[in-house]
Amino acid sequence: MAAQQPILRPKDIISASLQKAVVVKLKSQKLIRGTLNSFDQHLNLFLINAEEIQESNVVSLGDVIIRGDNVILLIFPKEEG
Amino acid sequence: MAAQQPILRPKDIISASLQKAVVVKLKSQKLIRGTLNSFDQHLNLFLINAEEIQESNVVSLGDVIIRGDNVILLIFPKEEG
Amino acid sequence: MAAQQPILRPKDIISASLQKAVVVKLKSQKLIRGTLNSFDQHLNLFLINAEEIQESNVVSLGDVIIRGDNVILLIFPKEEG
Amino acid sequence: MAAQQPILRPKDIISASLQKAVVVKLKSQKLIRGTLNSFDQHLNLFLINAEEIQESNVVSLGDVIIRGDNVILLIFPKEEG
Amino acid sequence: MAAQQPILRPKDIISASLQKAVVVKLKSQKLIRGTLNSFDQHLNLFLINAEEIQESNVVSLGDVIIRGDNVILLIFPKEEG
Amino acid sequence: MAAQQPILRPKDIISASLQKAVVVKLKSQKLIRGTLNSFDQHLNLFLINAEEIQESNVVSLGDVIIRGDNVILLIFPKEEG
Amino acid sequence: MAAQQPILRPKDIISASLQKAVVVKLKSQKLIRGTLNSFDQHLNLFLINAEEIQESNVVSLGDVIIRGDNVILLIFPKEEG
Repeated sequence: MAAQQPILRPKDIISASLQKAVVVKLKSQKLIRGTLNSFDQHLNLFLINAEEIQESNVVSLGDVIIRGDNVILLIFPKEEG
Repeated sequence: MAAQQPILRPKDIISASLQKAVVVKLKSQKLIRGTLNSFDQHLNLFLINAEEIQESNVVSLGDVIIRGDNVILLIFPKEEG
Repeated sequence: MAAQQPILRPKDIISASLQKAVVVKLKSQKLIRGTLNSFDQHLNLFLINAEEIQESNVVSLGDVIIRGDNVILLIFPKEEG
Repeated sequence: MAAQQPILRPKDIISASLQKAVVVKLKSQKLIRGTLNSFDQHLNLFLINAEEIQESNVVSLGDVIIRGDNVILLIFPKEEG
Repeated sequence: MAAQQPILRPKDIISASLQKAVVVKLKSQKLIRGTLNSFDQHLNLFLINAEEIQESNVVSLGDVIIRGDNVILLIFPKEEG
Repeated sequence: MAAQQPILRPKDIISASLQKAVVVKLKSQKLIRGTLNSFDQHLNLFLINAEEIQESNVVSLGDVIIRGDNVILLIFPKEEG
Repeated sequence: MAAQQPILRPKDIISASLQKAVVVKLKSQKLIRGTLNSFDQHLNLFLINAEEIQESNVVSLGDVIIRGDNVILLIFPKEEG
């Protein structure tokens, strides 16, 4: 039902999202938002201008590496326009 | 008792479900529903148009990668018709 | 004391149970029942017509893959007759 | 102080207990008792006529495979006589 | 949108931060701050003049090795001037 | 400051303790005491005449294998004279 | 800002601390203090004259092996004069 669409493996999807905004949900249930600058085979992520999104506010973290084993979800927000 | 039926390994089953709707139960007990676009050998999953199914409502997430080690169940709903 | 009985390794036992009913106890303490259709070396299991057995009722899940690292017990009910 | 006694590696001890009664303590603190029929290098165990030993009663499970990573202790009861 | 910027893998980013101040968030939710002196492929970190940052005060630890599997985030504060 | 003392790796220390009393602290915070009969590269331990040491009493277990990933500490009591 | 200082990998730092006092913080949040006698590639540690440091007192343990996967921090106290 749409099988013609090319199939990109998860790591291809992440590569295609470099320099774009991502939201990462951690096992601690916290959300980190930033620009995905690089990653490696362990799903370690390097985000620039990262922020922790809390219930009612946002805390700026700066540039961060997230160790991959803490990640539940890597969310790719729809790009506007 | 039905042993003639061909045996497909778990990864063959997942391959056969590409571009179809799946529901993923996470270790956090949360449920994520979406179209399975791709996966890899760690059971990392790429879902498009993903939604988190909560008790009484549904939260749209967009496209997401689920890191495989968070997965308890991959549920294949019966296709209608 | 019965040592003549042939010794089957755990994976041989699972192979011998294909197309039969099994009950899987998960680390979350939940029980899933279904027909074991296939498995792999990580003890990932593909069950058809799976159901979650709850205290007083049963919830139909459909076909499911259980990621092996969630499994505590794989229970082989006695076959009737 | 008894160093002459031959040294058997843990897997040799398990092999020597095949077809004998064992008690397995799980990480969930539950106890499973049964006849050890086979095992593999992950310490996956196949027990026949397994029972879960609860505080004041015993629940019959049938034949079970215990996934090795759930095991804390493998207890070898003294054989009578 | 800035894709010309050179892409540095997470380990290159860590190498570029040697001898600089870092803040490490641990799975216990504690924060450790110090000068990153070295690291290895497991993300084990050697910090000199490390301090645990608590809600209202700071506890000096001295030089410490953090075992990598405890790390959630490695935060690189913006350098002043 | 005593650097002339020969250095024995952890596994050499364990080998040197075979047939001696050891106390094992488990991740469940329980203490098991027994005579260390053998071990393997996963730190699986085979103890004979093992006992669980509880707050105010001791429960005899018999011979046990402790799966290594449950171990926090292996304590070597001082030998009396 | 001090980049001329030679860079020692975490395992070199541990080697340089043999026969010296260390404090180990465990995932259980307990602190163990002792003289580091040896270690291996899993960060298994052999401490002599180890003590558990509790809130208001110290419990002598004797010689202990700490299984490496329990370690959060390895703290090297400043040597006095």
